[in-house]
Amino acid sequence: MKILKIAFSFLLFINVGARAQDSLMLRKIYDEALVNGECYENLRYLCKQIGPRISGSANAQKSVDWGKSLMEKYGFDKVFLQECMVPNWVRGDKEVGKIINGKEIIDVPICALGMSPATPKEGIKAKVIEVKSLAELEQLGSKMVSGKIVFFNRPFDPRFIETGKAYSAAGDQRFAGPALAAKLGAVGVIVRSLTESIDDYPHTGTTRFIDGEPKVAAAAISTKAANKLSSLLKLKKFPEIEFYFKQNCELFPNVKSYNVVGEIIGSQKPNEFITVGGHLDSWDLAEGAHDDGTGVVQGLEVLRIYKALNMKPKHSIRAVMFMDEEIGGNGGAKYAELAMTNKEIHVAAIESDGGGFTPRGFTFQDISNDGLKYINENWKNLLSPYLIDKLVKGGSGSDVAHLQKLNTAVLIGFRPDSQRYFDIHHTPNDVFENVNERELELGAAAMTSLVYLIDTYGIQRK
Amino acid sequence: MKILKIAFSFLLFINVGARAQDSLMLRKIYDEALVNGECYENLRYLCKQIGPRISGSANAQKSVDWGKSLMEKYGFDKVFLQECMVPNWVRGDKEVGKIINGKEIIDVPICALGMSPATPKEGIKAKVIEVKSLAELEQLGSKMVSGKIVFFNRPFDPRFIETGKAYSAAGDQRFAGPALAAKLGAVGVIVRSLTESIDDYPHTGTTRFIDGEPKVAAAAISTKAANKLSSLLKLKKFPEIEFYFKQNCELFPNVKSYNVVGEIIGSQKPNEFITVGGHLDSWDLAEGAHDDGTGVVQGLEVLRIYKALNMKPKHSIRAVMFMDEEIGGNGGAKYAELAMTNKEIHVAAIESDGGGFTPRGFTFQDISNDGLKYINENWKNLLSPYLIDKLVKGGSGSDVAHLQKLNTAVLIGFRPDSQRYFDIHHTPNDVFENVNERELELGAAAMTSLVYLIDTYGIQRK
Repeated sequence: MKILKIAFSFLLFINVGARAQDSLMLRKIYDEALVNGECYENLRYLCKQIGPRISGSANAQKSVDWGKSLMEKYGFDKVFLQECMVPNWVRGDKEVGKIINGKEIIDVPICALGMSPATPKEGIKAKVIEVKSLAELEQLGSKMVSGKIVFFNRPFDPRFIETGKAYSAAGDQRFAGPALAAKLGAVGVIVRSLTESIDDYPHTGTTRFIDGEPKVAAAAISTKAANKLSSLLKLKKFPEIEFYFKQNCELFPNVKSYNVVGEIIGSQKPNEFITVGGHLDSWDLAEGAHDDGTGVVQGLEVLRIYKALNMKPKHSIRAVMFMDEEIGGNGGAKYAELAMTNKEIHVAAIESDGGGFTPRGFTFQDISNDGLKYINENWKNLLSPYLIDKLVKGGSGSDVAHLQKLNTAVLIGFRPDSQRYFDIHHTPNDVFENVNERELELGAAAMTSLVYLIDTYGIQRK
Repeated sequence: MKILKIAFSFLLFINVGARAQDSLMLRKIYDEALVNGECYENLRYLCKQIGPRISGSANAQKSVDWGKSLMEKYGFDKVFLQECMVPNWVRGDKEVGKIINGKEIIDVPICALGMSPATPKEGIKAKVIEVKSLAELEQLGSKMVSGKIVFFNRPFDPRFIETGKAYSAAGDQRFAGPALAAKLGAVGVIVRSLTESIDDYPHTGTTRFIDGEPKVAAAAISTKAANKLSSLLKLKKFPEIEFYFKQNCELFPNVKSYNVVGEIIGSQKPNEFITVGGHLDSWDLAEGAHDDGTGVVQGLEVLRIYKALNMKPKHSIRAVMFMDEEIGGNGGAKYAELAMTNKEIHVAAIESDGGGFTPRGFTFQDISNDGLKYINENWKNLLSPYLIDKLVKGGSGSDVAHLQKLNTAVLIGFRPDSQRYFDIHHTPNDVFENVNERELELGAAAMTSLVYLIDTYGIQRK
């Protein structure tokens, strides 16, 4: 009995000691991020000196060069590129969109969706058929749809507390709507911008066509113009409302591009990896500040903090700047493919691709129930003083999600506050000025803290 | 044994039933706020049609009239004003500030602190003595300070996670620094703006002098200019750096003003009150959007939601628009004084005065340990889906804090995310455009939810 008691006290002592040390380490991490943080100035450079960097563009290559040389300057143990082929879709001239209400012509803001084909040179003019869902369109059938411009107009549902859920719920209109409309013989597709904000500019984004199946020119329309068009259609006047649009976007052959990877080699398990990062490419219309410059500079900051505090991780820690998240997802796929080829064991991968807003916590994909319970019982109290203790099951991010096929890693989404993200997402308003320095730094510190805890205690996959 | 079992199952049933009903009610509250919310448009009117409304001004009176007529339009059971006397401090002409570096004259942005006296008509020019704290100034003593301009320059500490704590830690420089400097014979005081943001405009705010003790002209200086002045002082060049400033602000006799109160009468306990609101006055330099138009319109929205959902509270629920928070605190004092005179029993009072940002939770003042435990055991799960489950001890707000002397109420601070608040606090940037509609509405729903739970279950004071 006495022996047992002693053993127990000893264990307790170890445990308390570890917890106090962890608490001190998190405080050091936060102090470094908030007092000496460099992610904000790095983001400024990426947004203001490089700017928009769509997959396959010269600017995307500039951002690769910038990322690599910055990692080298920081003196990470390894810095390397991972070659991948990416689409080279080019928007071309500014798109033209018009509502034709008899003799009244109303110019409206539109922009081609990524991967959309062009309209004929002279544009397309046709009657408009408004639908709220793909199911509704399917039900109308090709007889009703053929020869028309399909107008997807289901708004964001404001009742979701997290806006990402409203985006997911409305997203099929943009992702899959144009392919379905094409199959049913539509001559064009207009999609209500994926935002709750009622504003004057279209929010771009990619759409998916299936190889060998019909394609059709597809564009996003601003929410204000979508409301206008919808209310005109409801009047059911004669002559019927028509829509005209013109875009000359073009898909060129794939080009070579790169992921940029920086690494601190693990002291005990150099072939086991904790990956952290975001995507380097952005939309052509935006500086890609929140989407996803912030993820890129936060990933970089994690490794910078490790070096600044002279922390020696057991596992190898990697900051990855993924290429081509917005269009083809080829960078994420290549990263996972190489991990497999090189027999790397990936323990965890954290993606920041929800903007540089105040952090709230993390969502864990492929974690075991016990693993999540462990985290909430042991780490929550450490993270709670930093207000990052929402630790729940959920998705990760589309770059790190490719690692699922390795069956080794818990995939993790960094979760900042979501309220303002879709106001600026995929628009010219996604600029550096809309990122708050402290919010960005708190995110970098949150990610570093989680990496530290995973490196120290491991994480239990299901 | 069987009876006990049945009784137990019955209790369990009641409890589960109540919890499910609460969950549904919170969902209804959020749907109403997010789908039919009116607080954003009310805030637009207050900011854009009325605008800045410093205590004692014609605009403050306009805002009283607006608040009262809006409450009447909503058809609350009672709408009334509470008369109080408030200071009438007027800024006067735009202030002038200059760093004099030998022959080089550098114009810098300053603004008089609220309640500060004017400088002499021709302004004040004097050598500058920079200090980081009141203690440091006290140590220097009147021999060193006399005849000088004191420059308080302790910056915000970026290591605080919640910016309100950094504000509190730096705040004595503005609140109490000028009075101390005056006592030591200073001829003027310049205070570094209370913000972490390094920007180009001064952040105003009130300072306190003690009746019968010396006063001195005191102004806030922008953080950029403060850094400039500090770095010049460090060079210790000859002739020594001087500072010049001129302001002709003036304190006129107190004027009559009002709190605006709207009430839904309790069905069971009409003389027991749950109060919710913010302050109607703002600084003269700002539209007072985040400070504190949001608190005002959120309080109003709580009652509007009660009516829209046909909720019949047991206690009387009051929305209060407090007057004169920024300068004298006379509205809050008057509210408490009348509550005492009228023998009202105040159960709880929630203040929203931290901006209209995404809500994180509430801080409870004068709650018992058991009361807080009860809330965390019983309400946290209900509030958690709305991400408002930080429920901890802490301060409330300077208006409702006056109710402490009643010894009946738990005083509660609504806690939105704090990161951006002090970037715009007390500056011309505190405008409607910097408030996000969803963030504002989520706050109103959070406050309504807490009012509903307190009304249903009570709250345990210490």
